Amino acid sequence: MTIGIVGLGLIGGSLGLDLRACGYKVLGVSRREQVCQKAIARGVVDLASIDFGILAEAEVIFICTPIAAIVPTVNQLIPILNPATVLTDVGSVKAPVVDAIASLWSNFVGGHPMAGNSDSGIEAAQTNLFVSKPYVLTPIESTPTPAIAIVEKIVKGLRAKIYHCNPQDHDRAVSWISHLPVIVSGSLIATCQSEDNPEVLTLAQNLASSGFRDTSRVGGGNPELGLMMARYNREELLRSLQHYRHNLDRVIDSIEQQNWVELEQQLQSNHAARSHFVRE
Amino acid sequence: MTIGIVGLGLIGGSLGLDLRACGYKVLGVSRREQVCQKAIARGVVDLASIDFGILAEAEVIFICTPIAAIVPTVNQLIPILNPATVLTDVGSVKAPVVDAIASLWSNFVGGHPMAGNSDSGIEAAQTNLFVSKPYVLTPIESTPTPAIAIVEKIVKGLRAKIYHCNPQDHDRAVSWISHLPVIVSGSLIATCQSEDNPEVLTLAQNLASSGFRDTSRVGGGNPELGLMMARYNREELLRSLQHYRHNLDRVIDSIEQQNWVELEQQLQSNHAARSHFVRE
Repeated sequence: MTIGIVGLGLIGGSLGLDLRACGYKVLGVSRREQVCQKAIARGVVDLASIDFGILAEAEVIFICTPIAAIVPTVNQLIPILNPATVLTDVGSVKAPVVDAIASLWSNFVGGHPMAGNSDSGIEAAQTNLFVSKPYVLTPIESTPTPAIAIVEKIVKGLRAKIYHCNPQDHDRAVSWISHLPVIVSGSLIATCQSEDNPEVLTLAQNLASSGFRDTSRVGGGNPELGLMMARYNREELLRSLQHYRHNLDRVIDSIEQQNWVELEQQLQSNHAARSHFVRE
Repeated sequence: MTIGIVGLGLIGGSLGLDLRACGYKVLGVSRREQVCQKAIARGVVDLASIDFGILAEAEVIFICTPIAAIVPTVNQLIPILNPATVLTDVGSVKAPVVDAIASLWSNFVGGHPMAGNSDSGIEAAQTNLFVSKPYVLTPIESTPTPAIAIVEKIVKGLRAKIYHCNPQDHDRAVSWISHLPVIVSGSLIATCQSEDNPEVLTLAQNLASSGFRDTSRVGGGNPELGLMMARYNREELLRSLQHYRHNLDRVIDSIEQQNWVELEQQLQSNHAARSHFVRE
């Protein structure tokens, strides 16, 4: 089977490495000729081009561009596609993408491999990036069953953990555990910067250790990714932020009122609840 | 030189291992006989007892109990101490401790080694725990210079990075980078628990990965430590929480208003500012 990949960054490039290792023929498209050359040199793809035309023979195409470029990419692909070609994407927000593509291409299966890290670009591509990581598929009622089966079979080859859900549930779930943390964590960095005594600010910078490092990591990440997540998952993110603000106000109130029994209960509940989300 | 340690947990136990390796004679006191036996068996101390009396010969005593027990420990020690004995503590909040002890024992130097981790107890004691970690000393105007010099000389032997500041600046700095993150991170866990659709909650739990794991780590930590930090550093923590809430509201407002230019600036500023706190 021949598989196309549009966008040869961390995700697209890593997909290429694994899919070729699975025995697929992989064709890559990037906007930049230099990236195409690197992709070929690194063995990420069998062939690469800045021209979408090379994807005419692909049976399945993974769209691995930034979210904003997914729908424009589908529009560029349509003229060259065989009606049987299956499209899938790797965007971190699903409802707006799936909604927009539903009327453009019926053989589309929304997807979201949760395997990103702080690296980016073709240089960051690595084998086995998806092993044991969640890979969410978000077919809708109108998605053809064979298209789902084809994408699922390919993703199984990546040894990812596959989850199925509707696009709305996906966006709400990732809002809680992926998008909300970016804002919560970023606001921590902004707040620590606001100390107006320069001696205390320098001291805080010197004393910051693993607790600050971990809590601030995603908030100090790629600004473009944070912006895209807020733009495309705006309603769910706002909903989780309102919940967060409510919870924060409760804790502030406990501390203000010196209600140590309630604060201790909250801290104990957090301690217990974390194990449902984190397997360490 | 003979050094006493009261409280043989992670910090007290690790201090014992390193101080013995530096050639000091180390005497340990724990409330529990079993811990004394373990401390001797693990080579953490030369001698251990549940009786403060054994510390009569110590020239310097490190008080490594939970914060709430520091001042009561000083009161218990006073009857057996030589006036020249230097006391120091390892509490994570300094102003209330230093203020209370100032009138009890002049040869006291407040200290805070920032080397804790999620482990606790004598079993967690390890060598070289303090190497390259910040160790803050908070002498006040009335602290005798020789007492500061003695504590500093011992701490240098641990190969920690020594900082000096007044107790208030310490408490403000750790509020930003250590105590605020605990509340910010804990509220994230509480918020994610509040999803009322059980399918979405399960999905969120399954999809949570490194971003959630890191951002929630300190918030899911030891509830007792979180409670103590809020009780003892209440004013500074409330001050930093008010700043945090203000910053969070600004971000929520940007997202509500779809002011993407402002949001992008905030995210870029966070990205740039983090490097002043975190050396990775």
